[in-house]
Amino acid sequence: MRVILDGMGGDHAPAEIVKGAVEAAAEMNHEIYIVGKEDAIRGELNKYQYNEEQIKVVHAGEVITNEDSPVKAIKRKKDSSIVKGLTMLKEGQGDLFVSAGNTGAQVVGGRMILGRINGIDRPALASVYPSLAGGKAGLLVDAGASAESKPHNLLEYGTMGSIYMEKVLGRENPKVGLVNLGVEEGKGTSVTKEAYRQLSQAPINFIGNVEARELPTGVCDVIVCDGFVGNVILKLTEGLAWNILKLIKKKFLDGVKAKIGAIFLKSKLGELKEEFDYSEYGGAPILGVDGAMIKMHGSSNAKAVKNTILKGIPYAENNVVAVIKTAIADLEEIIAGEE
Amino acid sequence: MRVILDGMGGDHAPAEIVKGAVEAAAEMNHEIYIVGKEDAIRGELNKYQYNEEQIKVVHAGEVITNEDSPVKAIKRKKDSSIVKGLTMLKEGQGDLFVSAGNTGAQVVGGRMILGRINGIDRPALASVYPSLAGGKAGLLVDAGASAESKPHNLLEYGTMGSIYMEKVLGRENPKVGLVNLGVEEGKGTSVTKEAYRQLSQAPINFIGNVEARELPTGVCDVIVCDGFVGNVILKLTEGLAWNILKLIKKKFLDGVKAKIGAIFLKSKLGELKEEFDYSEYGGAPILGVDGAMIKMHGSSNAKAVKNTILKGIPYAENNVVAVIKTAIADLEEIIAGEE
Repeated sequence: MRVILDGMGGDHAPAEIVKGAVEAAAEMNHEIYIVGKEDAIRGELNKYQYNEEQIKVVHAGEVITNEDSPVKAIKRKKDSSIVKGLTMLKEGQGDLFVSAGNTGAQVVGGRMILGRINGIDRPALASVYPSLAGGKAGLLVDAGASAESKPHNLLEYGTMGSIYMEKVLGRENPKVGLVNLGVEEGKGTSVTKEAYRQLSQAPINFIGNVEARELPTGVCDVIVCDGFVGNVILKLTEGLAWNILKLIKKKFLDGVKAKIGAIFLKSKLGELKEEFDYSEYGGAPILGVDGAMIKMHGSSNAKAVKNTILKGIPYAENNVVAVIKTAIADLEEIIAGEE
Repeated sequence: MRVILDGMGGDHAPAEIVKGAVEAAAEMNHEIYIVGKEDAIRGELNKYQYNEEQIKVVHAGEVITNEDSPVKAIKRKKDSSIVKGLTMLKEGQGDLFVSAGNTGAQVVGGRMILGRINGIDRPALASVYPSLAGGKAGLLVDAGASAESKPHNLLEYGTMGSIYMEKVLGRENPKVGLVNLGVEEGKGTSVTKEAYRQLSQAPINFIGNVEARELPTGVCDVIVCDGFVGNVILKLTEGLAWNILKLIKKKFLDGVKAKIGAIFLKSKLGELKEEFDYSEYGGAPILGVDGAMIKMHGSSNAKAVKNTILKGIPYAENNVVAVIKTAIADLEEIIAGEE
């Protein structure tokens, strides 16, 4: 397998990206092509011992920033690391594309350069959603690639998410749940009602509606919702976790006078923070495009880069895109009944 | 003012409802009519010292439970406390209706018995949303009365929420924010884009889009979203807060051997729980119906009942429904441009 890594994307590029690549390479036999400004990347690479046969640099003179408009950037910055990397994937010069760059540009780039899988009109971002109650983390699809969804989009999110969870993250017979106003069938909007019908008929383990209250306990393996709701779920979780931790820190440390007590509490706070540490889980695949591509958080450090690469390998290795293609073709009959 | 209190609604009715009424009565001069099964309510009332001129019982022989279908219950259970209480409000035998009963039945009852304010096609549930970072709590509209919204519904939610925040909760020039995928204008769905345009033209203090991440810090006084998203925000907040507190309890108390340390930590955990205590804030008005009605949480205890009554008085006293009527009529021109 050959991993194509965007060397210029993210808040800590290229330093942490390159460091993560070196660390990942040490734990596997696959090759990594780091795409970006050659001088800058080689400058970072030279800080480490690495196998020159395993890590290679592909020069790309332009960078797409977070301020760039996605469509314009993909059309105009032809020599950017994202456009170049995705073109390499398209042309078979690599098997998996990984980037911490502009999310919108990655989604648009995937759609325009790789193309959509036949039958998919809206690719989705699938993000790992942590579980707090000792349950297993879930996969949230769509985490914000599209703002609006038709019922069959939600069916496709559930199907693609189920395949990814099983083939890439190794979860057996993943439970798929639809985010809704209540657990009973017949709840929700006209879109969620019809999506419920379609998901019920799909060859996946659909467990029905789930309420947002149950998400933090890992109620299902694949959490299906439109990208607007998915964005709200991810961002609210982030905002709440961050502010609750801040509040705890303030409340608990304020009353502690003995140094030993403060040290004890600080170590416990550190453990709490780890529960919310997304870097453990790897990145977020963009499902529905014709190629294996994984988006990392913009703030990814070397550990996140390393984990994303290592955990993403089965995406390419198990030919998951081909599995999704076949599964989506099989859904035609269910979708045909869409009201 | 005469408060009409549903004596039979909620998990702790009638005991906690009656207790809360007695406590509220002791702090104000307004009358309270408790509607419900007379024997049961008098049985509770007899446990307390109270002014018989101030607290009166109105018999209603039926009860709408949480299992009842809202529309059927309102149509068939004519002698229920909700139908009877709302009818009293409609007929001017009271000024404010308060209930901890079946939310759906309250929304449907408000629409069918009180009627909608001219120009409002979707009444909204407005729920107080706590702030964790020392900011002020916000008002979330719609918290789940309708699953779907058109742009002008969101305009109306923002306008009604702003009036309620100012006239009832005393917040000066309330900041109104629209929940969206990003802060920039032009983000989101076709509905949120058009709602942004309409809210910008309304005579309110519209601050633009807000992201879900910022909600826990009290970024705005009125949080506008459709009922599906509002439901997700409220339930996810509840689920996360509950599970994070559980996790903290486990992590922190596990390592504490000294009794004094455990007592200290437990008192701090108690303080944390208070941050999430909705009973401090009073209930959730159902805005857009032609009468002042406030829904309490189903698990309301006496303290919540007391707070809801005391904090709800200005809703009737300041004739807020009439203020909303005038404001909604003034929005016609903005709505006419809806695309």
